[in-house]
Amino acid sequence: MKEISKLMNYRSDVRVVDATLRDGGLVNDFYFTDQFVKDLYLANIRAGVDYMEFGYKASKEMFDVDKFGKWKFCDDEHIREIVGENNTDLKIAVMADVGRCDYKKDIINRSESPIDLIRVATYLNTIPAAVDMIEDAKSKGYEASCNIMAISNAQEGELKVALDILGKSPVDVFYIVDSYGALYPEQLARLADIYLEAAAKYGKKVGIHAHNNQQLAFANTIEAVGNGVDWLDGTYSAMGRGAGNCAMELLLGFLRNPKYNVYPVIEFIDKHMTKLREDGVVWGYDLQYLMTGLLNQHPRTAIQFTKENRKDYAEFYKEVVAQD
Amino acid sequence: MKEISKLMNYRSDVRVVDATLRDGGLVNDFYFTDQFVKDLYLANIRAGVDYMEFGYKASKEMFDVDKFGKWKFCDDEHIREIVGENNTDLKIAVMADVGRCDYKKDIINRSESPIDLIRVATYLNTIPAAVDMIEDAKSKGYEASCNIMAISNAQEGELKVALDILGKSPVDVFYIVDSYGALYPEQLARLADIYLEAAAKYGKKVGIHAHNNQQLAFANTIEAVGNGVDWLDGTYSAMGRGAGNCAMELLLGFLRNPKYNVYPVIEFIDKHMTKLREDGVVWGYDLQYLMTGLLNQHPRTAIQFTKENRKDYAEFYKEVVAQD
Repeated sequence: MKEISKLMNYRSDVRVVDATLRDGGLVNDFYFTDQFVKDLYLANIRAGVDYMEFGYKASKEMFDVDKFGKWKFCDDEHIREIVGENNTDLKIAVMADVGRCDYKKDIINRSESPIDLIRVATYLNTIPAAVDMIEDAKSKGYEASCNIMAISNAQEGELKVALDILGKSPVDVFYIVDSYGALYPEQLARLADIYLEAAAKYGKKVGIHAHNNQQLAFANTIEAVGNGVDWLDGTYSAMGRGAGNCAMELLLGFLRNPKYNVYPVIEFIDKHMTKLREDGVVWGYDLQYLMTGLLNQHPRTAIQFTKENRKDYAEFYKEVVAQD
Repeated sequence: MKEISKLMNYRSDVRVVDATLRDGGLVNDFYFTDQFVKDLYLANIRAGVDYMEFGYKASKEMFDVDKFGKWKFCDDEHIREIVGENNTDLKIAVMADVGRCDYKKDIINRSESPIDLIRVATYLNTIPAAVDMIEDAKSKGYEASCNIMAISNAQEGELKVALDILGKSPVDVFYIVDSYGALYPEQLARLADIYLEAAAKYGKKVGIHAHNNQQLAFANTIEAVGNGVDWLDGTYSAMGRGAGNCAMELLLGFLRNPKYNVYPVIEFIDKHMTKLREDGVVWGYDLQYLMTGLLNQHPRTAIQFTKENRKDYAEFYKEVVAQD
């Protein structure tokens, strides 16, 4: 069943989602150049990526548009400036956070929009609000996923109730989101089984979005795909909040479907990602993220540690253990 | 069976081997300060690590002692200067390469030496020479392991023959060595099954030494331990040739045996490893290592790319594909 078991074969249901602008935007407040975004769009097309997430549909009442790059808000016209009519096989996604998105106003009908997929991000305790957003998106003609964050803290019983509620909603994909980078592959496999059982019951798909706190984002993603999870998030150079995500270059190297090509990803990294790091944008695995992952904590303290350029790992370990 | 399956339990047969000086020495030609080595020794004791590998027993006829730090040669007296009589639970290991070690002369009787374990490193095609070294080491009173390198290139049939030969030798541990960082966890699991079957037949143990070319060194190590592999190599900050190894700090964070403590590892990294990087010593996951790992090639071209401070990943990819 695992993808690699049939080295000459592949599962055609797999969908690869590039989340570089969205999760990576959390690192640089979404200040990407238009050239970066355009080149990323073209690289994704050439690499055979299935969906490109442009950023968030964040509420302009809650967030100051002058304090963030435009991809925090993903106005349809800004996406259009990059993709035109997007006459390609690459679909366009945006994320909409429960409680931080004026979806009734800011998400228009799909027939008028370049966007194809609305990814609704929620915690377990806000599932009813997520369902409202899913219903809104589906009624406007979009595909919709529900990304349940911080899943390593979920009680199994509560998760099953949530998946039942979501199963009865029109959502297309349930997402496992290991926000804290706390899961080991075997734990991930057990979680995936719960998701897959509900998905089979309700005719949904399952996706995974991993974080690299314990250098397991890629390992957990391929563990999941081996168990039947179809939707796989990756980011170029693993760019994403804190320890970052599953690296697109690792993921496309692994997948055996000849529609995927790793070379355009490498070319893009060569052209853009090295420069981004040289410009001082910081992300990726480091000891402080290992610690919060190990302790199954939100990475916010580790992100702060990084921002302050601290290197006193031993002192930080004592701090996070004290908060445990 | 997997380690994590019983979160409150652990397998007491697990042995953790610190290979920092040996595999890390390949990055800085074994020029570690005495303070570094002494602190590492003390950290290993406090962390509950089972074996500390000090370096190689390299032939002084083949290698110029003036061109390497002393841990390429691991004279017993140099080890003694660090460990004294080593009245601790931490055992001392060295590596002896087939064809690069004057073992009959340079390895004295264990009763006269601070060393406990001789790790014989070999390729599949030099197993008879490895057996001679193993017999020599065992006759002198040492524990012995046989580390079969570049295993991702091995034919299954040849491997089985080799394990039969080794099984009949007095070796204690068979090691899986993913020198190229080419294996995915599922492939690793299948290899481990072959090793474990032979080990059960001959009463041996199985170990794993992983490389991080595809960010899978830790994932492959915990996959292996879940399948019954007992001897686990790690290095502080994953220091090792090319993309480095399984990080000791990840490994000890994962293992549930209360004898292991991750904090001394973090303290050591805080004190020494950050400085090492600042001094210009370079190792760890990067795109060039991903490429050689993906293509199941020796990392030598990627190491050269790193040494030359090249960043033209796309060009390098074309070069390694051309060599494939």
